[in-house]
Amino acid sequence: MRQLYLVALVLISLSGTVTASEPERVEPPFWWTGMAEQSLQLLVYGRDISRLEPETNSADVTVLGTETVENPNYLFINLNIAADTDPGTFNIALKEKGKARFNFEYTLRSRTPGSASRRGFDSRDAIYLITPDRFANGNPGNDNSDDTLEGPNRQHPGGRHGGDIAGMQQHLDYIAEMGFTAIWPNPLVENDQPGYSYHGYSATDHYRIDPRFGSNEEFRQFVASADARGLGIIQDVVLNHIGSGHWWMKDLPDSDWLNGKGINKGEFEITNHSRFTPVDPYASEVDKRGFLDGWFVDSMPDMNQRHPLVANYLIQNTLWWIEYAGLSGIRADTYAYSDPDFLQQWASRIHREYPNFSIVGEEWTRSPALVSHWQRKEDEAVSGGRLKSMMDFPLHYALREGLADSESWNSGLITMYEGLAHDFEYPNPNRLVIFAGNHDTSRLYSQLDGDLNLYRMAIAYIATMRGIPQFFYGDELLFESPKQRDDGIVRSDFPGGWQGDKANGFTGAGLSEEQLEAQSFTRKLFNWRKRNPVVHNGKLMHYAPLNDTYVYFRYNDDKTVMVAINKGSEPFAVPTGHFSEVMNGKKSATDVISGKQHDIDTLSIPAREVMVLELE
Amino acid sequence: MRQLYLVALVLISLSGTVTASEPERVEPPFWWTGMAEQSLQLLVYGRDISRLEPETNSADVTVLGTETVENPNYLFINLNIAADTDPGTFNIALKEKGKARFNFEYTLRSRTPGSASRRGFDSRDAIYLITPDRFANGNPGNDNSDDTLEGPNRQHPGGRHGGDIAGMQQHLDYIAEMGFTAIWPNPLVENDQPGYSYHGYSATDHYRIDPRFGSNEEFRQFVASADARGLGIIQDVVLNHIGSGHWWMKDLPDSDWLNGKGINKGEFEITNHSRFTPVDPYASEVDKRGFLDGWFVDSMPDMNQRHPLVANYLIQNTLWWIEYAGLSGIRADTYAYSDPDFLQQWASRIHREYPNFSIVGEEWTRSPALVSHWQRKEDEAVSGGRLKSMMDFPLHYALREGLADSESWNSGLITMYEGLAHDFEYPNPNRLVIFAGNHDTSRLYSQLDGDLNLYRMAIAYIATMRGIPQFFYGDELLFESPKQRDDGIVRSDFPGGWQGDKANGFTGAGLSEEQLEAQSFTRKLFNWRKRNPVVHNGKLMHYAPLNDTYVYFRYNDDKTVMVAINKGSEPFAVPTGHFSEVMNGKKSATDVISGKQHDIDTLSIPAREVMVLELE
Repeated sequence: MRQLYLVALVLISLSGTVTASEPERVEPPFWWTGMAEQSLQLLVYGRDISRLEPETNSADVTVLGTETVENPNYLFINLNIAADTDPGTFNIALKEKGKARFNFEYTLRSRTPGSASRRGFDSRDAIYLITPDRFANGNPGNDNSDDTLEGPNRQHPGGRHGGDIAGMQQHLDYIAEMGFTAIWPNPLVENDQPGYSYHGYSATDHYRIDPRFGSNEEFRQFVASADARGLGIIQDVVLNHIGSGHWWMKDLPDSDWLNGKGINKGEFEITNHSRFTPVDPYASEVDKRGFLDGWFVDSMPDMNQRHPLVANYLIQNTLWWIEYAGLSGIRADTYAYSDPDFLQQWASRIHREYPNFSIVGEEWTRSPALVSHWQRKEDEAVSGGRLKSMMDFPLHYALREGLADSESWNSGLITMYEGLAHDFEYPNPNRLVIFAGNHDTSRLYSQLDGDLNLYRMAIAYIATMRGIPQFFYGDELLFESPKQRDDGIVRSDFPGGWQGDKANGFTGAGLSEEQLEAQSFTRKLFNWRKRNPVVHNGKLMHYAPLNDTYVYFRYNDDKTVMVAINKGSEPFAVPTGHFSEVMNGKKSATDVISGKQHDIDTLSIPAREVMVLELE
Repeated sequence: MRQLYLVALVLISLSGTVTASEPERVEPPFWWTGMAEQSLQLLVYGRDISRLEPETNSADVTVLGTETVENPNYLFINLNIAADTDPGTFNIALKEKGKARFNFEYTLRSRTPGSASRRGFDSRDAIYLITPDRFANGNPGNDNSDDTLEGPNRQHPGGRHGGDIAGMQQHLDYIAEMGFTAIWPNPLVENDQPGYSYHGYSATDHYRIDPRFGSNEEFRQFVASADARGLGIIQDVVLNHIGSGHWWMKDLPDSDWLNGKGINKGEFEITNHSRFTPVDPYASEVDKRGFLDGWFVDSMPDMNQRHPLVANYLIQNTLWWIEYAGLSGIRADTYAYSDPDFLQQWASRIHREYPNFSIVGEEWTRSPALVSHWQRKEDEAVSGGRLKSMMDFPLHYALREGLADSESWNSGLITMYEGLAHDFEYPNPNRLVIFAGNHDTSRLYSQLDGDLNLYRMAIAYIATMRGIPQFFYGDELLFESPKQRDDGIVRSDFPGGWQGDKANGFTGAGLSEEQLEAQSFTRKLFNWRKRNPVVHNGKLMHYAPLNDTYVYFRYNDDKTVMVAINKGSEPFAVPTGHFSEVMNGKKSATDVISGKQHDIDTLSIPAREVMVLELE
């Protein structure tokens, strides 16, 4: 494909007489007045278009200049939007020798009031993570689309199952009633790949919601509906790579648009995954580049964000979706794999437009120090691409292993205790997003060997620990998977999301007793969490495990909450003296789940149980 | 025992007529003029001695005051030694109602010239760690001692085997010829315990070398002899605990002299080993105290260093040994288990007297962040008890597991590569003491499944990596042990150290071919290291493992050294382009072990081999 393109390019250059064609694409498709940054760069795509000269008919929106790349089919127009520009549509003429060859209209919309000051997610929130193709098929009519390759196939674990935005929309009440306040769907932009297109991490068009999920407008309405129910939407943004079916790949703008091997670098060369190179004092340049520039897999070309036009394209695209859809936050995929200078630009330009916005970065490591490297202090300006929030993978491992492993001097609850102690390494641990599982891990319930008691401990932990909890759809129904990662199984269909499903997770019909219990426990706890600022921002004290029991407290001036995880086979008679620093003066404890009140002097945590208790 | 003492104390107090007895002990036994600190506190022990009033007959050495404790058998005398005091002996009278009841002489020695400016160990050094009871029995005449409990028993892995200072003294040439520049013997002070007294970590007299090891004077001469061969001596200091047979235990000075349970706190209460409490933002006070104040085992009473007299006693004791014996450094046992304020005093008072001295602390953890917490920056004043050097346990684990585990995307050499990358967490990784094994770990060779090739890789790594290498006696002879810790076996007798030994590690007689090869490899490498500053202080660059081979370079303006560890079953043809950042322009590589020269273009690392190469 690329060879063909090269030949074509050479022919065009030699002939010099080819006539430019009308623009096929203008991106971003529209913009807004009143943005902090007055400049806007349009990518205009059309045959041999680079030779044309743009001119606007607006006094407020002026052409600062143009930029071209090796491929003459791309023209980048740098516009200035004056501060007091009114919303509206103006004309851009593309001229040749002073004469307009083509004209296109461009619209500047009015920003939603308060758009710039929107708050992002924080520890008051609880995030529900959804794989949209697998949650609910709200509109079977869009399972297939004329202009995309892969059709639906529910029998194939790696195929498209038909879940969509309409499905999420129809079940917003369910999510809100479960106690969550934010939704993070896996990416929704077009992934027109021949296979495995359902997961969303192979963008083929940055400005289009995949038609099998819905339309851009449907997404915008979904965000508004969610907002009306107190649910913010967090967009999953992939800066590092695109899908091999991206429209760019058919006519690459520049020989260094992508990283990798080959003449145009656009050939597969795998990343070395050397995720420590950004901090490693002894890292070689070849490894630093191998980490940043290598590809994940051959179907995911790696973007060269050192190319200023690539960088700007990605940044404007992020800003566009925030403003257009009304997002509450971003989850940045494979964060550290992108060029760090670019990440710095990206994050600081987002925060210039939305100072209170939240971004959580993915850095998949067991090392708190490495995660910490990417987290910035509360009041620090964006530097080094550091983000307010990072995914707390170290705590994720500590939690799963701490619960799954048997108790000994160096395994089990001690792993959770010592894991949490590592918080001294973070600028702000309460801004980390904590999770017991996500779309890339095995299912929690399976990792805990199908033990409902251990499941409850995990959920209680995630709901009461410092940080911002993130919950993976289906865990409330005890979804299972092999312990070794198996994406297709991990991302199974939520029962009730498809017509004819025997069970229904939304209504409870056909669920097992264990599933109902797990769902009810989760619902109760997250709803309780929502009402209790002590868990959002209260202090934390924890105690070295004692008799196979791990105890910690969240407390502030108003309230004290005790969480006790007893993994042992004996009840744990709470030695109140041992916990007197926090328990002092408290007389009774109310079980958050059962509502039952206990006398503190005789308080006992049953064997293999977790209790979340409000102390008074 | 303690109950009896209490009864006696009460009787004495009631009667009030008991006559004081002559001092049985005065500690420190002597001191020096010309110390930076002019104050000196004497512990004087004798029946009912606290009621007496001290007076000196020296104009330069004056009594500032006294301090007493609950037990009247202790008197603490605070002296001031004027700056210009001449060395010599003066009299201290202990008076009652103005009349001298007792007199004792006290001597101030003259400091060795240059004592204060001695240099400690650093990355130019290589340390040989010895368990003295198990190295060589240079003087069978001291295997037994009239005034100690435990006699020799070579058949018992946990018994005393007879090794001593004379044994180390006789083999200083061996150690120096092996290429080492410092010796760290396990503690040599009196351990008059009924059993397991050989290891030295249960002091029963802080001012006395155990007679079964030799005398104080023998130790002093040993240090001088070592020094003459370019070998510094590092003393193993235990601040956290003493032995249950310590003379204090028969007549405890104060009810808070020790930590623990019971009226006098002098009863066993095990530590919670919660080593993260010093940094854990959520640690409870009860866990902080449980960590610091709990005992290791019931035979090791835990010192209360918050008691000012205990603190001062321990600090003066350390200073005394440095000055008396002429030490080059200290290895501080179970460092973090002592009170942090005390550690701060201890370290800063040592550095006040010896600004260039070196102390390496033991903090047994896999967490670089926790080790880092205890290391201070190069030019930072002592604060928080932070030390120049810490034992590099995280790298120890990375090395052993990296070599022992099979190669995969997340095990084997990647563990070493990522382990080292964590150096970004340390103020100065080149001051960490690195080791493949010590007296508390299983034997290196066994951990590597008796694989001589892996052994060579471990030794090459320790000899060429940043930091200060520490080597455990016997590893050069491939000592073995169970993989699970078994102290008695780990600390086996060095062959040739005892009369009648069939093999002799010092001469090579009776050693297996593998042993001779391991010893020769070790000797060559550490002697080469000694001559090559590039390994002491050169820069470091390492590369992500490639084809089961881990490659790193040490380099400075003068020299470039390449270390390549090939764990694979195929030769590794060195891709010089990949390493061009460091290899650029180099034409040949000389094998440090074989002396063989290789052309760089055809350089290949044989399967399962390590090569240390000087590039030119």
